[in-house]
Amino acid sequence: MRDLCILKIGGSVITEKDRESSARMEVMMRISEEIARSMNGDLILVHGAGSFGHIQAEKYDLNSTFNSKGILVTHNAVKELNRIFVKSLSEGGLSVAPVHPMSCAILKDGRISSFFLEQIELMLEKGMIPVLHGDVVFDESVGVRILSGDQQVTYLAKSLKAKSVGLGSNVDGILVDGKVLKKITPATFEDIKSHLGGSESVDVTGGMLGKVSELIELAKTGVPSCIFNASEKGGVERFLSGDSVGTVVCSY
Amino acid sequence: MRDLCILKIGGSVITEKDRESSARMEVMMRISEEIARSMNGDLILVHGAGSFGHIQAEKYDLNSTFNSKGILVTHNAVKELNRIFVKSLSEGGLSVAPVHPMSCAILKDGRISSFFLEQIELMLEKGMIPVLHGDVVFDESVGVRILSGDQQVTYLAKSLKAKSVGLGSNVDGILVDGKVLKKITPATFEDIKSHLGGSESVDVTGGMLGKVSELIELAKTGVPSCIFNASEKGGVERFLSGDSVGTVVCSY
Repeated sequence: MRDLCILKIGGSVITEKDRESSARMEVMMRISEEIARSMNGDLILVHGAGSFGHIQAEKYDLNSTFNSKGILVTHNAVKELNRIFVKSLSEGGLSVAPVHPMSCAILKDGRISSFFLEQIELMLEKGMIPVLHGDVVFDESVGVRILSGDQQVTYLAKSLKAKSVGLGSNVDGILVDGKVLKKITPATFEDIKSHLGGSESVDVTGGMLGKVSELIELAKTGVPSCIFNASEKGGVERFLSGDSVGTVVCSY
Repeated sequence: MRDLCILKIGGSVITEKDRESSARMEVMMRISEEIARSMNGDLILVHGAGSFGHIQAEKYDLNSTFNSKGILVTHNAVKELNRIFVKSLSEGGLSVAPVHPMSCAILKDGRISSFFLEQIELMLEKGMIPVLHGDVVFDESVGVRILSGDQQVTYLAKSLKAKSVGLGSNVDGILVDGKVLKKITPATFEDIKSHLGGSESVDVTGGMLGKVSELIELAKTGVPSCIFNASEKGGVERFLSGDSVGTVVCSY
């Protein structure tokens, strides 16, 4: 089996986060080209919803109300972003296959309780890059919840024994007092928590604090990850090439 | 648990089969209203691809070639049909949730080898109607294959212990010498086979013979089904109301 890398591209990177359903085509194209140039081994992509989902989920109050129309509107919006991103990746020369979490996962109290992975493993075996996304997913306890791309990344990384994990954001890493932290561990996380607010725009998945919490849990299982700037030209390429970028989240 | 009905709506019913990606909006609307009026208990819908998939799959020769662009084009086409049909069902007052087989199933030599069903069961529990469709699905042995709606119907009916199964087609049932057969069993199937050609338009899933073969296998496990005319006004409503319609496929 080849080394597996899981790369998340934040919704804030590929969408105009405050303008409903507005995609950043030129960023997608650049990222597609960077991946095509630098990937080696198996790759799974996960992208956030950005303005194709967060705004809709907020409007229908999906994290506390069960609204079948709201579920559909939000799910369709994020699938549309996935279609656009997948098209861009394909045009960049990559063999990609969309995977929609509502169709293959269920939650319990907002956490993944079951996730079908055989199609993802088979896609990798056939040389494809599965492309997942933040989504509305049915929940055994509470009807539906938003399943963030971040939670998927950590779940996939643990289940499929990823070698490397990157979260491409629109910031240079974890900022504390305006400086990028080189490293964060479960031991230092408690002190840093207060510096990590939610993100500035509408974000129903917990912003940077939610993101780091997921990665700390992942680090505890022995899988290191890093948060880096994917909005910056060359960021994705440097990460995939194995260069040190952004903030590393590791166990010690 | 409430009685489960599985209803397939043929691609020839809801699309103009010979015109690429052309949906029959008025038929979808009528079917949505008929379902809303007559459904009782749990319902799973499965629809064919019609001109949103068969033409594309043929063009890229997906049943014998692995072409990542063709996979994407075909998958996107049938998801677009699903989006349109789901929207129509929702506007008809039904609570519906799309389920995309590429995301939740894998095949071996063209037959389902694994199919995630927990999301479907949970959707039903939450009062939703899952809406599946014929799709391109990854195959352990041969790369990818077309997974017909018909094969899904029989798989779901067996796995979820359906009470009734209906295949809504654009004909009145199984025709032999111009007459609709009332009943077909495994014993009579052999004699009837020669009368069942493929469908007249492009159909990569085996036409009427493929359909009946699936239902004969299902009947052998004790689940009867019927093939009826869903293009005709009132057909779906009569089927869901429990009236005798079309040709029944049963074990004896």
